Amino acid sequence: MGLIRPRTLKGFRDFLPTDARARRRVVAVVTKVFERFGFLPLETPALEYADVLTGKYGDEGEKLMYRFTDQGDRDVALRYDLTVPLARVVAQYENDLPKPFRRYQIATVWRAENTQRGRFREFTQCDIDIVGSAAIAADAEIIAVIASVLETLKVGPYTIRVNNRKLLNSVLAAAGVKEKDWLPILRSIDKWEKIGAEGVRSELSEILSDSQMENFFSLLPKERTEPFDEWSARVSAVISKEGDGKEGLGEMAALLEGAEAIDAPNGTVVFDMLMARGLDYYTGTILEAVIDGQEDFGSVFGGGRYDNLIKQFTGKDIPAVGVSCGLDRLLAAVAENEDFSVKPATASVLVCYVEDDTVAEGQIIANELRKEGINTDLWLDPARLEKQLKYADMLGIPLAVLFGSEEAKKGSVTVKDLRTKKQTRVPRADLVETVNELLGV
Amino acid sequence: MGLIRPRTLKGFRDFLPTDARARRRVVAVVTKVFERFGFLPLETPALEYADVLTGKYGDEGEKLMYRFTDQGDRDVALRYDLTVPLARVVAQYENDLPKPFRRYQIATVWRAENTQRGRFREFTQCDIDIVGSAAIAADAEIIAVIASVLETLKVGPYTIRVNNRKLLNSVLAAAGVKEKDWLPILRSIDKWEKIGAEGVRSELSEILSDSQMENFFSLLPKERTEPFDEWSARVSAVISKEGDGKEGLGEMAALLEGAEAIDAPNGTVVFDMLMARGLDYYTGTILEAVIDGQEDFGSVFGGGRYDNLIKQFTGKDIPAVGVSCGLDRLLAAVAENEDFSVKPATASVLVCYVEDDTVAEGQIIANELRKEGINTDLWLDPARLEKQLKYADMLGIPLAVLFGSEEAKKGSVTVKDLRTKKQTRVPRADLVETVNELLGV
Repeated sequence: MGLIRPRTLKGFRDFLPTDARARRRVVAVVTKVFERFGFLPLETPALEYADVLTGKYGDEGEKLMYRFTDQGDRDVALRYDLTVPLARVVAQYENDLPKPFRRYQIATVWRAENTQRGRFREFTQCDIDIVGSAAIAADAEIIAVIASVLETLKVGPYTIRVNNRKLLNSVLAAAGVKEKDWLPILRSIDKWEKIGAEGVRSELSEILSDSQMENFFSLLPKERTEPFDEWSARVSAVISKEGDGKEGLGEMAALLEGAEAIDAPNGTVVFDMLMARGLDYYTGTILEAVIDGQEDFGSVFGGGRYDNLIKQFTGKDIPAVGVSCGLDRLLAAVAENEDFSVKPATASVLVCYVEDDTVAEGQIIANELRKEGINTDLWLDPARLEKQLKYADMLGIPLAVLFGSEEAKKGSVTVKDLRTKKQTRVPRADLVETVNELLGV
Repeated sequence: MGLIRPRTLKGFRDFLPTDARARRRVVAVVTKVFERFGFLPLETPALEYADVLTGKYGDEGEKLMYRFTDQGDRDVALRYDLTVPLARVVAQYENDLPKPFRRYQIATVWRAENTQRGRFREFTQCDIDIVGSAAIAADAEIIAVIASVLETLKVGPYTIRVNNRKLLNSVLAAAGVKEKDWLPILRSIDKWEKIGAEGVRSELSEILSDSQMENFFSLLPKERTEPFDEWSARVSAVISKEGDGKEGLGEMAALLEGAEAIDAPNGTVVFDMLMARGLDYYTGTILEAVIDGQEDFGSVFGGGRYDNLIKQFTGKDIPAVGVSCGLDRLLAAVAENEDFSVKPATASVLVCYVEDDTVAEGQIIANELRKEGINTDLWLDPARLEKQLKYADMLGIPLAVLFGSEEAKKGSVTVKDLRTKKQTRVPRADLVETVNELLGV
């Protein structure tokens, strides 16, 4: 029989113990913060009916969906994000869910992305959403959660950019652009950081006439950092007349005010008209968080308000706002933080294999330590002690316990501290106490 | 635009907050026990190259695999279990992994099962495996972990059945059955609990001649509960001559001895020649755990030794043993245990919406409580207080905090305990202390 070549699909990853532990630690922090804000966990299937997912992400998104026909001839797809499944859940169980519904979900999503730009085809998203509140205070809560996650993980300075689709749309309307062109234009604007002003202008020139372009740019902030009040004073007369422009101005003013109550340094939350977010379904506030100095790397959090998405299932207006965090980017941001770079061991003690005759007692010792709440590994096969200690050292297990015939004779046991290389022989009855002392418990 | 009907695929489930929390609690206990035994986390992709997965589960298993062609024309499949991906990982990263490698993985697997028998098409498995040890002590460690999980979750009396494929194979060989028929026969035997002795006999009569059948049954234990020593004394002369029969007898004796060191009531681990486990890849010890009185419901844990699986990738012998736990069955077993049936709230406090003028202060209060480590929900929209308190009660949030113009005037805040219905007004500065006292922190 031929050998099967062990390999993973492009864009899919294994996480060996060191990485898996780092991921688990960050997920634990994120979960803790989400629960601190009263969000409730939800789990949804990886696979959905395709029609549940399609028509929400734009054509480009849809091409990236893993879609196939199952054994029952159903048209199915792997989830592309966690927002659309949430919208389905809200529609499906309307009467069983709390209102408002603060939910979090930390789960894998799949997109057949071009992997060349450090993107993966399978990745974990950490999402929070507040469903059933139209209040801008809900948008402010989302911002407060983002700040709390990033403060808790000590990622260093970061910026939360906020904008509003109603403002972008009214600027486009005021510039004389037809509604069908808005989304492609927003997607171009969103690339500002990557392709620069000239790149954006060149992309837009394919959609906009020269006069539309001129109008459009004249309504944007003078510099990316122009404060909301100044920009608003300049353009409000024009854009208040367009569609939801006035509403957008009011929402943005309220959001910036609400953001003052959150626990983050001044200047963390900034108005940014050049942040547009690509997804089709946003209707109001949009927001993203970037680590200062790592802007090129993309946003760590991204999201916004989507008051019409659930309507596609129910026909009823149910307002919602939320944000999604890419675990990979969050991990990259905390990589410098030593709390999260540790050796992979889960055990604090390795009970070694000393002699064939004392193996059974080794098993008993290991189970005794475990019963006392001490994480304990047990070496199972005959092997030189050096090999066993090297294994402990590689994993970062701090203590080794040795029980051979000599210890058996004297009713004692040897404990070796692999950090200090000191070893002591203690009465068998004192083992747990000795281990706990050395571990500083 | 027509509405999209919100629905899930047959065999796929949403877990709303109450269920999701119960699942998270059980997973946390399982994880803690796995780490107590020194197992290390591993994460592998949901999607694998199909050839990595095929040829290991038998024809029936393979039909249940979700297999499709991806955008890059690759033949891919969703993982069917966590054991084969582990074997791939061991082959792929041989030099980067600790030896022996104790790994755990808690993750979703997919099988297009017939859903009529309470089976799901998407479910979570909790797996531990020890790779790189041929010692029967490793098999005993696996049994110790199973016992520790079930003891910690207080599921009530349970039985861990152990058997050995070498024993089953040698009995079949001694009965004159050809090797190609062994696996289908083992699969029939495995249904003993469901279809009874007569059902098994009737299935076997399609494969075995009358004399083979007679020989076969004469070599099985007289009753299912016949102790290993008695059965072994009766048949060892015959089966020791067949293939690995002698080895199987030695392994079983050693395993039953090793199982005495584990922390479980006497009689928990029983030899059971009628437990065969269906998967192709087992080579030695096989084992399963059932909750006493719930045997019909199937096993909570199932696994065994598979010394040849990794060889399919590497060509080298790498011994391995492990067990897989179905989270759904574990949850069903703990459902009676009140620790795991709770209301879904993650928050301990709901900061209510009292008046429009005091909303901003409500946000500040909520963020103050959160900063002190108190999980806090915040009501965001104008609403009658009754509605807000009903929400808190439905979720199980124990405390409500009210801050209106009256409180503002007096520099105080009202705290209502929803369990006792008592409410007190305290100075604003004493809020955190009052809340902590009421929560018993």
